[in-house]
Amino acid sequence: MPKISVKGQQMPESPIRKLVPFAEKAYKLNKRVYHLNIGQPDIKSPKVAMDAVEQHSLEILAYTRSEGSEGYRIKIAEYYTKKNINVAADDIIVTTGGSEALLFAMGSIADEGDEVIIPEPFYANYNGFATASGVNIVPVNSKIENNFALPPISEFEKLITPKTKAILICNPGNPTGYLYSKEEIQKLAAIVKKHDLFLVADEVYREFAYDGAQHYSILEEDSMAENGILVDSVSKRYSMCGARIGCLVSKNKQVIQTALKFAQARLSPPTFAQIASEAALQTPQSYFDEVITEYKERRDILVNELSKIPGVTMGIPKGAFYCIVQLPVKDSDAFAQWLLEDFDIDGETIMVAPAAGFYSTPGMGKNQIRIAYVLNKESLIKAMNILKVALETYKD
Amino acid sequence: MPKISVKGQQMPESPIRKLVPFAEKAYKLNKRVYHLNIGQPDIKSPKVAMDAVEQHSLEILAYTRSEGSEGYRIKIAEYYTKKNINVAADDIIVTTGGSEALLFAMGSIADEGDEVIIPEPFYANYNGFATASGVNIVPVNSKIENNFALPPISEFEKLITPKTKAILICNPGNPTGYLYSKEEIQKLAAIVKKHDLFLVADEVYREFAYDGAQHYSILEEDSMAENGILVDSVSKRYSMCGARIGCLVSKNKQVIQTALKFAQARLSPPTFAQIASEAALQTPQSYFDEVITEYKERRDILVNELSKIPGVTMGIPKGAFYCIVQLPVKDSDAFAQWLLEDFDIDGETIMVAPAAGFYSTPGMGKNQIRIAYVLNKESLIKAMNILKVALETYKD
Ligand SMILES: Cc1ncc(COP(=O)(O)O)c(C=O)c1O
Ligand SMILES: Cc1ncc(COP(=O)(O)O)c(C=O)c1O
Repeated sequence: MPKISVKGQQMPESPIRKLVPFAEKAYKLNKRVYHLNIGQPDIKSPKVAMDAVEQHSLEILAYTRSEGSEGYRIKIAEYYTKKNINVAADDIIVTTGGSEALLFAMGSIADEGDEVIIPEPFYANYNGFATASGVNIVPVNSKIENNFALPPISEFEKLITPKTKAILICNPGNPTGYLYSKEEIQKLAAIVKKHDLFLVADEVYREFAYDGAQHYSILEEDSMAENGILVDSVSKRYSMCGARIGCLVSKNKQVIQTALKFAQARLSPPTFAQIASEAALQTPQSYFDEVITEYKERRDILVNELSKIPGVTMGIPKGAFYCIVQLPVKDSDAFAQWLLEDFDIDGETIMVAPAAGFYSTPGMGKNQIRIAYVLNKESLIKAMNILKVALETYKD
Repeated sequence: MPKISVKGQQMPESPIRKLVPFAEKAYKLNKRVYHLNIGQPDIKSPKVAMDAVEQHSLEILAYTRSEGSEGYRIKIAEYYTKKNINVAADDIIVTTGGSEALLFAMGSIADEGDEVIIPEPFYANYNGFATASGVNIVPVNSKIENNFALPPISEFEKLITPKTKAILICNPGNPTGYLYSKEEIQKLAAIVKKHDLFLVADEVYREFAYDGAQHYSILEEDSMAENGILVDSVSKRYSMCGARIGCLVSKNKQVIQTALKFAQARLSPPTFAQIASEAALQTPQSYFDEVITEYKERRDILVNELSKIPGVTMGIPKGAFYCIVQLPVKDSDAFAQWLLEDFDIDGETIMVAPAAGFYSTPGMGKNQIRIAYVLNKESLIKAMNILKVALETYKD
């Protein structure tokens, strides 16, 4: 039998993959499972976007340009300008989700064996894109007791080698919910400048910042014109995960020209999804206000409910819709499985993501889980109660 | 300034990229340009598919499963069964175009420095996927005087090394239009079995076979259960290039499990496009009959018109909608540019794809072009007349 590639063998599985069979078992037993484990929001997509697709008048569903349709890119640039990010259509490549932008970014800046430094815990699929690109992730540890704030720059300095090509951040963070301050971004800008590295910022949760906090993009820093690569997506902003539209943005022409070659090989991003995403740019501010209020209230519920559970600590989220929660258990993998397999309150249980998969350093995060607060408030309260009772019951 | 990766520098540009500025110049001069250079069909997408999207009732545009929605995969398996390809839903991963299926296939079976043997001329973007995957393409030459039939197996044997992981074919071929016979597929099956290689078959033009010829899929060969990987797409079959839906099919469980890990990293194929593609499976046979008749007539016009031009030879296409044409010129790059820049008949000219970009061996194809017959018959006749007069005029 012909052999699978080493790379293919090394491709990581999703951190919740192992739990899926247990979730399926729970469904079979007619348990109701509250899903705190994935970032699929329950929020409606903007009507203006869905209507645009309903009203399409295409007779031929043709390829668009590889960099995305011209009209859409012009409007994305306008969106950024309003956000204080001064970029033009030419600085933007429309991608098939933020996922593809991450893949193009890695391919454009790093070769087999090169290194990218990422504060951990981080979005688990960075591992997949890194493995697919032959890139090694070098983690720098951020700490729950600091809400996962930026680790000291000296910690980054220690890890920089001739093979280091970039620092990659997620802001606000999945899975941490941490929102970097302007000062933190400026520190990162200074270190990448000093060492001639790229700064890749995954800002797909830009819109989700709470308590009046302002998101500060790496491309608001003039000094990042050559070093900065922004990764973005409509998935979370408009609750349009299934569109598969994102973009890669950089004022560095070489980066754009290179990413464009990757884009040309795969021909075009999806056409219907570009129609939806272009229309989504007309989403009224009231939609975002409502959505942000909703998430903030959920966040508050989560923080409040979790504070009542003995032995539990958490990083207080300032953005996105995730948080890392430290539990009084030894192995959150086993605990998450037990929740699905052996526990319920009146036929209800929860599914959570064990946090070890968000860390690159072996052994880290073993007593942590990630919670995505993508459920309505009532469900969230129930889910937190289930967690509380479960922790009282569980023995490891 | 931070540096672009070596891989990024090596990523190839599309073979027609250099011509684009000249095409734009031609438009500015109000020239009408007949586009024979790209595989974007002018055929309408099936109404049933476009209507399905118009009538969508989604409120949340959510991710689907990474391997594609269950319902769609079941129906794809039924489609294959009707085509004598006995596969189940579990053998199928829905991808973002055939492009992504090719990328997943390469990543799953080959590591940096590994080799894949491909008969040349071949679809130029194989170069991009290979470079992105760190894979080296080893070309085996097929010849215009044989209509680009399968090269002798002894030629493949000569090229097999310990680094060879697969043979990749395109059937029917872009850019050749050649349709492999059952005997040729069986010869390929035998050699990959003998050397324990994968046989990857890009069958995105399966439906386009003329003169009553039958397409024979690699997965119709029972012996290919472990070795065969089929790449497919809705782009050409339903003239739905902008959907961005394809699939990777294999009865080798390890291949599917590995490709699934690549699929999970990028989360989900596009949702609207899956709705369109699932509905497209209901396209009535009459649609295909009409489309095939149309292409066959175009093919006949092309062969007939080209046969009238002195010094021109071609591979007679038996499938797909491309052909390679050998011209009495030294450098088809220069000729293609001249057509756009310096030539017209009553304000009309043609854009063709220079064929060198479809060859891997340096110097090959320099006096050849690829013609895509994706124009209506009247335009095609005009375009061929332009080519004829242009060749009488051109001096190189
Ligand atoms: C931090 C982060 N980046 C990128 C993505 C990729 O999203 P998409 O490909 O849907 O844009 C996600 C999705 O969950 C994410 O959480
Ligand atoms: C031979 C061949 N394979 C694959 C593709 C990729 O098509 P898509 O990604 O649109 O499915 C094409 C597109 O032209 C092609 O000609």
